[in-house]
Amino acid sequence: MVTLHYSPGACSLGLHILLREVDADFELERVLLAQGENLTPEYRRINPAGRVPAIQEADFFLTESQAIYAHLSAKSNHDVFLAHNLRERARAFEMTAWLSSTVHIAYAQLWRPERFVSADSDHSPIVRYGEQLISDHYAQIEQRLTPTQYIAGDEYSFADTYLFVFYRWGGRIGLNMKKEFPKWTLWSERLLERPAVQEAMYVEGITLFGLVERLQFDRREPA
Amino acid sequence: MVTLHYSPGACSLGLHILLREVDADFELERVLLAQGENLTPEYRRINPAGRVPAIQEADFFLTESQAIYAHLSAKSNHDVFLAHNLRERARAFEMTAWLSSTVHIAYAQLWRPERFVSADSDHSPIVRYGEQLISDHYAQIEQRLTPTQYIAGDEYSFADTYLFVFYRWGGRIGLNMKKEFPKWTLWSERLLERPAVQEAMYVEGITLFGLVERLQFDRREPA
Repeated sequence: MVTLHYSPGACSLGLHILLREVDADFELERVLLAQGENLTPEYRRINPAGRVPAIQEADFFLTESQAIYAHLSAKSNHDVFLAHNLRERARAFEMTAWLSSTVHIAYAQLWRPERFVSADSDHSPIVRYGEQLISDHYAQIEQRLTPTQYIAGDEYSFADTYLFVFYRWGGRIGLNMKKEFPKWTLWSERLLERPAVQEAMYVEGITLFGLVERLQFDRREPA
Repeated sequence: MVTLHYSPGACSLGLHILLREVDADFELERVLLAQGENLTPEYRRINPAGRVPAIQEADFFLTESQAIYAHLSAKSNHDVFLAHNLRERARAFEMTAWLSSTVHIAYAQLWRPERFVSADSDHSPIVRYGEQLISDHYAQIEQRLTPTQYIAGDEYSFADTYLFVFYRWGGRIGLNMKKEFPKWTLWSERLLERPAVQEAMYVEGITLFGLVERLQFDRREPA
């Protein structure tokens, strides 16, 4: 049994979709970033950095999306981990690594500029440049996708579950995803047909570019 | 046969050490960051982002340290990949992911502030805060290490090869590593006893905190 600590619409959504795709025995523990639940002493015992996602297996805790994808892939033969195709598998890890260490950082510039400069500094240059970086990165993703393939190649993989988070965030920050990124949009429509994606969004209380009304978020939150 | 594209002392050093540890059939291709060799059209065909490391296996190219560690671990049973201990293996991936998406980013603030704000912005708040972040991250690493263990637990692993890069960089930016980080320094001394570490440094033309004279670098380079 795995417990996934998540916040609605945060990057933990990728792992949430993945756990449903592989029909894992798991449960969810909601940690509302917008209400600072990630900064409580209780959650700090799970992840001292106060971030989601984190997983728990009995007394074992693990953080960092990349590490959790690698860990789950070592324990499952499900096709979504691409063990039968080492090159596509490597490509999937290359994509999740890039999303994590480059694209996610650009979003941090937008949503968490205080991570980059001191509190008394002007945050606006960081935020503005973050927006530009996101546009550049998104153009690369659009260029890479084809109308029929997935992000690592011919097969749907764990990297697609993570990429879905960033498609959704684009809409959340006001990008016209359908118009600017037509191939990525076709890809997102194929993902939205998958029961695991539908279920994860329903359970988290999120829509493609929005929230279900009962959830209240600070506008800076990724949800 | 694997080709590793590296720059002396850059984060590619971790993979260079690792390839020697596992006695891989590999060759090196030097890409001097300080001379902009990573930005040539030739290298852009290998990695459009113009970064090291990149590996090549026949017609297959792969970038992103995390992806290369995952790829090599899928193809080898060597103990350094910890396949016999899934929890320590997960911990090793957690460390490489954190180093890559958090600690490496703080160094980018120091060495590449232009990645975070536009060219006409003041870069100094980014640089100064990067220095503070590195101190904070390094304190966490020091706290985590014990006098006898490795970074993922009881066993030496691929995560140690990557962590070695950051120990060395600390000295390069003028931190008093021995005084401020005694446990991490003991760890580094154990690594320096390993032939693979010695050989990789010799071949790259680097010393623990310096360079061999024949190599000329811009002071902003990580080498």
